Amino acid sequence: MAKDFYGDLRLGILGGGQLGRMLIQEAINFNVNIHVLDPDPNAPCKRLCNQFEVGSLGDYDTVYNFGKDLDMITIEIEKVNVDALEALESEGVIVYPQARVIRLIQDKGLQKQFFKQNDIPTSAFQFISNKDGLAQSNISLPFIQKLRKDGYDGKGVKKINTAVDFDTAFEEPSIVEELVDFEKEIAVIVARNDRGDMSTFPMVEMEFNPQANLVEFLISPSTYAEAIQAKAEQIAKKIANDLQIVGILAVEMFLTKDGDILVNELAPRPHNSGHQTIEGNYVSQFGQHLRAIFNLPLANTASRGNAIMINLLGEEGYEGLAEYEGLEEALAIDGVYIHLYGKKYTKPFRKMGHVTIVHEDRNTAIENARKVQNLIKVIA
Amino acid sequence: MAKDFYGDLRLGILGGGQLGRMLIQEAINFNVNIHVLDPDPNAPCKRLCNQFEVGSLGDYDTVYNFGKDLDMITIEIEKVNVDALEALESEGVIVYPQARVIRLIQDKGLQKQFFKQNDIPTSAFQFISNKDGLAQSNISLPFIQKLRKDGYDGKGVKKINTAVDFDTAFEEPSIVEELVDFEKEIAVIVARNDRGDMSTFPMVEMEFNPQANLVEFLISPSTYAEAIQAKAEQIAKKIANDLQIVGILAVEMFLTKDGDILVNELAPRPHNSGHQTIEGNYVSQFGQHLRAIFNLPLANTASRGNAIMINLLGEEGYEGLAEYEGLEEALAIDGVYIHLYGKKYTKPFRKMGHVTIVHEDRNTAIENARKVQNLIKVIA
Repeated sequence: MAKDFYGDLRLGILGGGQLGRMLIQEAINFNVNIHVLDPDPNAPCKRLCNQFEVGSLGDYDTVYNFGKDLDMITIEIEKVNVDALEALESEGVIVYPQARVIRLIQDKGLQKQFFKQNDIPTSAFQFISNKDGLAQSNISLPFIQKLRKDGYDGKGVKKINTAVDFDTAFEEPSIVEELVDFEKEIAVIVARNDRGDMSTFPMVEMEFNPQANLVEFLISPSTYAEAIQAKAEQIAKKIANDLQIVGILAVEMFLTKDGDILVNELAPRPHNSGHQTIEGNYVSQFGQHLRAIFNLPLANTASRGNAIMINLLGEEGYEGLAEYEGLEEALAIDGVYIHLYGKKYTKPFRKMGHVTIVHEDRNTAIENARKVQNLIKVIA
Repeated sequence: MAKDFYGDLRLGILGGGQLGRMLIQEAINFNVNIHVLDPDPNAPCKRLCNQFEVGSLGDYDTVYNFGKDLDMITIEIEKVNVDALEALESEGVIVYPQARVIRLIQDKGLQKQFFKQNDIPTSAFQFISNKDGLAQSNISLPFIQKLRKDGYDGKGVKKINTAVDFDTAFEEPSIVEELVDFEKEIAVIVARNDRGDMSTFPMVEMEFNPQANLVEFLISPSTYAEAIQAKAEQIAKKIANDLQIVGILAVEMFLTKDGDILVNELAPRPHNSGHQTIEGNYVSQFGQHLRAIFNLPLANTASRGNAIMINLLGEEGYEGLAEYEGLEEALAIDGVYIHLYGKKYTKPFRKMGHVTIVHEDRNTAIENARKVQNLIKVIA
């Protein structure tokens, strides 16, 4: 298969944002023809592909017509029309990750059921169809309400502290989830190719910006005990195998204060928690995803050293044509790699880029990351 | 300056081949708008830039019109119309490397004179205006005849063993150069930004394919004595400073059997001898070139470990639509990174891609590189 691929393969990417952009940076090495569909006429991938099409990712006809002459489709966002992908699959277009995997992961309720059915550790939960269900919930307060569909980047998630919050809760079908008293949010990215080879990236530790509810600071590799890391990686592999996914899968987990691991959410695509792999590991998540979907041997995922990733978010109070302050000062620090996403407009907390900071000494890496975080401001 | 750059800067690249392609892969991180000029309508950069223009790099009007609305121009090939670049410079377009540097390096005779005037060690030479000059040369046989202009990738270079070879020698203005009995061909890439900061990549060792007269196998870092490496790096820095170049400069040198270093040739752009920096060093030659021309702080060039680079050349006996044999088998070897250049057609010895092989053990890296070399064949 691989031999036929190169040069001729038409690979479609649903979504033309930063994940697609970084996937293209890597796909250039493989010589494939890239087609991108995105609703934004100025999406970050616009000028970097063989064909860029503006259209809705949720519309059946748009996705079907985009895909019908392609050899293979992958995604950089899971909110896409799965019915169209299933039709394309039935007509012989390769869709990786498979449409059924995307359908399952689109619905956080189905994800939770899948965890339960497959003995994958996750927090206790209950489904409700509207906010009236909150009062009847047998999960004790405070708890988390999560929309089953269309949440992303922390949107669609609410902490319900007391019954007073029921009023402002989501009305749509949701999950009520036990609040996990976690020690740390961790993630493992696993890749699986069509012949069933699997490989995990080393576990990473995440720090969220509580205001933006976004991963803001990521540390790789983790310094938790080997046993914890091995357990997290084994859970990720079990999920990839249970799903029989082809491609990469990001598994976000909670490490509890008792040392237990609970799976939070899945993303069947390159993920914010894997950006540091570009400089920090022997293969990047983007390179590994391409190897997986092309059914090539998976690469060595070992860490090349300490790597910290910070998201560059639009500064609060600024909206408009993006400007970047402090880049030059940040680049004067050893081991700083800047990735700007090519977004013309900034708004508060919009992901405008990321920076990876590498250093052989972990504490120096963290200190340098803090410096970079203070230096770079995305304003307008 | 840097702050204004991002997002708005229109950077033109003269030449749309593999060097431009890899430069774009890196420039994506900086958010700049890339415009490319190349005579080949299917050049490797075609689909990866904001604007791709087909036209002659040697034509004054074409280069001038391409550049007149750009903020900055750089090159990936030195055979370009320098008069047009000088006109653009005088009108305020930033040209890095500077037009005068390109003019000097275009002519191997001027290069040699520059070495002599600046006490840069190089082999003895003499200019001749046509092949009749060969008989009068005071350089003793055997010697090398090199065209002053338009030679590249080993073309425009002849070894003259005896007077019998005078007949088939080049008729054009040439240099007659003493044949250097070298131990090894080495190279150092140096970067210099506009404020005069300079930084060298570690010295690398090259092995040529004598048939194709191309770098085919490159080893980084070198294991020669520190003193030799330091001397090579110091020569490269002296040249960059003497030229006052902005951008990167590849300095190809001979290490003689007596441990002397003689400068062979310069290339004021990313160079085949620096491809392994993508995976092998903390910054790639492409990233460093961008930092230099954007007048940003230069990055740490240290080696991250052993890296071997091999060129993927079109197999002898094949011409036509390129096919790649053995990629899958090669990717099964640990630490193998494939870079295909997106060239549709192969012909014997055409540079179709390169592979970098990294391994913590140098001998294993070399062994793996040999395996990859035997596995991958570019045929038609």
